Amino acid sequence: MIAVPEDLALKATELSAEVTEPFPASKKIYVTGSRPDLRVPMREITQHDTPAMFGAEPNPPITVYDNSGPYTDPDATINLVSGLEPLRAGWISERNDTESLDGPSSEFGRARLVDDKTAHLRFGEPRKPLRARGGANVTQMHYARRGIVTPEMEYVAIRENLRREEVRDQLLLKQHPGQGFGAKLPEFVTPEFVRDEVASGRAIIPNNINHPESEPMIIGRNFLVKINANIGNSAVTSSIAEEVEKMVWAVRWGADTVMDLSTGKHIHETREWIIRNSPVPIGTVPIYQALEKVDGRAEELTWEMFRDTLIEQAEQGVDYFTIHAGVRLPYVPLTAGRVTGIVSRGGSIMAKWCLAHHEESFLYTHFAEICEIMKTYDVAFSLGDGLRPGSIADANDAAQFAELETLGELTRVAWEHDVQVMIEGPGHVPMQLIKENMDKELSDCYEAPFYTLGPLTTDIAPGYDHITSAIGAAQIGWYGTAMLCYVTPKEHLGLPDKNDVREGIITYRLAAHAADLAKGHPGAQIRDNALSKARFEFRWEDQFNLSLDPQKARSFHDETLPKDAHKVAHFCSMCGPHFCSMKITQDVRDYARDKGLDEKSALAAGMAEKSEEFRSQGAKVYKKA
Amino acid sequence: MIAVPEDLALKATELSAEVTEPFPASKKIYVTGSRPDLRVPMREITQHDTPAMFGAEPNPPITVYDNSGPYTDPDATINLVSGLEPLRAGWISERNDTESLDGPSSEFGRARLVDDKTAHLRFGEPRKPLRARGGANVTQMHYARRGIVTPEMEYVAIRENLRREEVRDQLLLKQHPGQGFGAKLPEFVTPEFVRDEVASGRAIIPNNINHPESEPMIIGRNFLVKINANIGNSAVTSSIAEEVEKMVWAVRWGADTVMDLSTGKHIHETREWIIRNSPVPIGTVPIYQALEKVDGRAEELTWEMFRDTLIEQAEQGVDYFTIHAGVRLPYVPLTAGRVTGIVSRGGSIMAKWCLAHHEESFLYTHFAEICEIMKTYDVAFSLGDGLRPGSIADANDAAQFAELETLGELTRVAWEHDVQVMIEGPGHVPMQLIKENMDKELSDCYEAPFYTLGPLTTDIAPGYDHITSAIGAAQIGWYGTAMLCYVTPKEHLGLPDKNDVREGIITYRLAAHAADLAKGHPGAQIRDNALSKARFEFRWEDQFNLSLDPQKARSFHDETLPKDAHKVAHFCSMCGPHFCSMKITQDVRDYARDKGLDEKSALAAGMAEKSEEFRSQGAKVYKKA
Repeated sequence: MIAVPEDLALKATELSAEVTEPFPASKKIYVTGSRPDLRVPMREITQHDTPAMFGAEPNPPITVYDNSGPYTDPDATINLVSGLEPLRAGWISERNDTESLDGPSSEFGRARLVDDKTAHLRFGEPRKPLRARGGANVTQMHYARRGIVTPEMEYVAIRENLRREEVRDQLLLKQHPGQGFGAKLPEFVTPEFVRDEVASGRAIIPNNINHPESEPMIIGRNFLVKINANIGNSAVTSSIAEEVEKMVWAVRWGADTVMDLSTGKHIHETREWIIRNSPVPIGTVPIYQALEKVDGRAEELTWEMFRDTLIEQAEQGVDYFTIHAGVRLPYVPLTAGRVTGIVSRGGSIMAKWCLAHHEESFLYTHFAEICEIMKTYDVAFSLGDGLRPGSIADANDAAQFAELETLGELTRVAWEHDVQVMIEGPGHVPMQLIKENMDKELSDCYEAPFYTLGPLTTDIAPGYDHITSAIGAAQIGWYGTAMLCYVTPKEHLGLPDKNDVREGIITYRLAAHAADLAKGHPGAQIRDNALSKARFEFRWEDQFNLSLDPQKARSFHDETLPKDAHKVAHFCSMCGPHFCSMKITQDVRDYARDKGLDEKSALAAGMAEKSEEFRSQGAKVYKKA
Repeated sequence: MIAVPEDLALKATELSAEVTEPFPASKKIYVTGSRPDLRVPMREITQHDTPAMFGAEPNPPITVYDNSGPYTDPDATINLVSGLEPLRAGWISERNDTESLDGPSSEFGRARLVDDKTAHLRFGEPRKPLRARGGANVTQMHYARRGIVTPEMEYVAIRENLRREEVRDQLLLKQHPGQGFGAKLPEFVTPEFVRDEVASGRAIIPNNINHPESEPMIIGRNFLVKINANIGNSAVTSSIAEEVEKMVWAVRWGADTVMDLSTGKHIHETREWIIRNSPVPIGTVPIYQALEKVDGRAEELTWEMFRDTLIEQAEQGVDYFTIHAGVRLPYVPLTAGRVTGIVSRGGSIMAKWCLAHHEESFLYTHFAEICEIMKTYDVAFSLGDGLRPGSIADANDAAQFAELETLGELTRVAWEHDVQVMIEGPGHVPMQLIKENMDKELSDCYEAPFYTLGPLTTDIAPGYDHITSAIGAAQIGWYGTAMLCYVTPKEHLGLPDKNDVREGIITYRLAAHAADLAKGHPGAQIRDNALSKARFEFRWEDQFNLSLDPQKARSFHDETLPKDAHKVAHFCSMCGPHFCSMKITQDVRDYARDKGLDEKSALAAGMAEKSEEFRSQGAKVYKKA
């Protein structure tokens, strides 16, 4: 129970226990890098020994990627009012290229700091924002291009490897070769490999110097596929505390980044609470807040107030901005003949502005100035797909691809400023048209990381769009997409509640993992192999503990076979004792051993031969010449 | 409320209303073929007119495939005790090649008919089974190869077309070209096309002459992708009435066939109740019942008692049998080095038998005799994949592919008897290895229809395996699999309840549909287009009604925006009125119309040009030479 003081008038006053309790049979471990303050969190899941009937061998602990931050560390002291420890603060300051401001440099940030009406919502003590010292560039890309391996780069290298060298020689590392579509996955990720990927623009490490609480992570197709979860209140408002809890909930289940898409009141304050307590990078769509500032009248948006919004958010610590700078005036009429027009909120806002003024988008014309802001704080671009298709009918059309080409053009501009970039993608796309999206993104956008929403592979299943989109997400992840934006079961229908967030995240974690397997990410199959071995050996507890959602796996099991005794029984409710194929397989193994067939290498060769022999005999029964 | 008399001692006494109520805004229609007794059911969903702000046009009714049988027809009289009307009885008898028996010809069937202990469980009046008259062959394949177009073939031709000729010229038929991997989907299915596909073995129409209640359907890769749902009680027994209700529930949500995998007591009686009340083909795995007859001792199975079981079930009306005749003795040791051994129940039973006797499987050695039985009743083979992989680690291994080759060999034998065949497939397969399964099946098994379980694309998400498998199912369906066996959220953990069955079926319906879109099945996109148009125009009711699960879509929507007024409002809870991209798109359309850009053909050309013009101007801003 972590208290949020009542006098902050946040509706909920504490994080509920379910949000912070450690996972079963798991402990938080930290792998230390080349310096003592570089401690990379992982989750280690312990396993039981194999039961006697299956050979009584010990099973190693399995290390899995851990996004949950200090919340699942029983040794950590959590206080939402003071925020997480700024673990990167030392790394940032020792680079000696930033300056600390007395307060926000944005107009809005300054005004809000002294606003009485929102004083009760304000996060603890005001921070002093950092920015690059006169003309400096503080992006990870800038360092990478100058040959500097930052602690952030070393951190993600350790994180991606998941200590799999420790199980390298075991059965668990056995894995099918992947099919990579041009991805080049190293056997072990080195800090230098990370540097090179960031320098080339093929990967990004989104971490604003004003979000030192974040644990570095990398987004690129030569790394593990990542997922993003969206949270945020809207007109039907939820409280700030609810949004903070939703963020903690999201990282618990495996969100690699979280986007705060709040559109209601108090966007500024909500964001501050989220960032100060978030162990993962936070993304936003600044145009949403800009629109609130002009009371929803898109035509009244100006470059000046948008610029102020960027600085406001950059100084709070937002790690990446979705900027819909590819929605250009000439592309807008291309959407008129669509079945579902423009479905991106940001895209439609900019389209309306362009039409109202009959002018080119200020995001496009001021793009170089935006880059100047981004490099001052190391905010990464997520170049928004404002013209993404909102239906199968509109997939891969002229509007979508015109925008994508412009995003490629803007990628080049950003890279001239050493600003990190990823590219947003669709949307609704039938399976046979998915690969074209990936191929075109790689070529038009020079291999900048692709970050897609789904895509949904059919429109006919509202209520199940986490699944229609997971089908497309797994595929496009396999083809090379670096991060998948989750879709919840409520997509198209309403705002997700806590359970929907969990469903959406687990669905996307499994889709991302399916993609890692298909690409042949080294070591990805370890967890599958461990879980399958546990399943085969009726180690029910281990099966639950190794799964993406141990609670659900256990509760589903207990529904039909509730007695504790059964969890160690060598059969289950599906088949009962007579039909147990696992038991029979053990007979097969015993048989093979009795016949001297137990050495695995001998087995493969010997049995193929034996099988051939039998087959040629069997051929007499049915085979034709 | 449909009564099942209490004196039958069936635990539940009626079908609940939720199982039979018609879908919203839907009516059952029947399309009559070349003879008055050939009436093909479909569901017609009516739509509202487009609201004034979007152009006030009428929207046509959409016809969708309907598996739900008479249960959703308010005009039908349902009485579970007498069963459904035998709609195919006349077609069968007029072929004049069958004879009616006085009673079951199987020993077990005869014994059970006079068994006092199970008398209270017996289905109504005993039927007189049909079988082929001395030496005749009554399979659809046999007729097809002799050039006969049966009423069953005409029925499925009408059914597959879904009256889409009526919307052919409308916007709704606009569809992306598919990528077919060798599938040849005709623009309109003719009875002659059906005959040719059945004659070649590329498709099957499973309908036993003893299941005249079934509505014909076709399984083949040049038709709509079908799905199967498994039901059945086990040791943790459910009542017969529950299983009948589960069957009705399954067809309601869209199961094209249902497999009764009961393994508990009273398999025989349960099956009879299911078949007599089922509008879809019923499949079974006869070895399960055979094993019950020898009290679970696999080694005591004999060809004679298995043969009797086949006849028993064939005379009840089972439409297809899963027969694991490819689990041959020499292949069994190939599984010893696997992570998860043999996971198929039927496969493990036969493996155990082979090992115990050190003899070739009696299913394999007696295969030609099995064919004789199949052709006497028109039972189709579903050649079982007893050695399918049960984990990612075991995918595409020697055991799996050895069995597949044998299934191809047996397909040829079955076809020599004009017996219909489909081939079962895996299982657990990572995405990059899925296509090899399809390609190998097509070549090894001579294009016989493939019928796969999933495949699951990762092992790490128990509790979500409907999703891990839907990812693989959509893909393999796209590549050419004809029928997808559903997986429920309870897979690996327990027996599915009613809600799991629904989740599993809708998940597989959407996966099958995604595959139809990707293959380019003519007209598949009509429903997507209609639903997306409704979504764009804020016709919430139409969006719900056109979806695969109208109840869930509606309830999700109502959770966050409960008021009726909002269901016609032109915005929704996700964005609120300011952020509504739909509203802005309408502005774009109005703008385009004002500028004389409303003619679609002119638009495409004109805008591309305009866009080019703008782009060349815009190039001045950022583009490099």
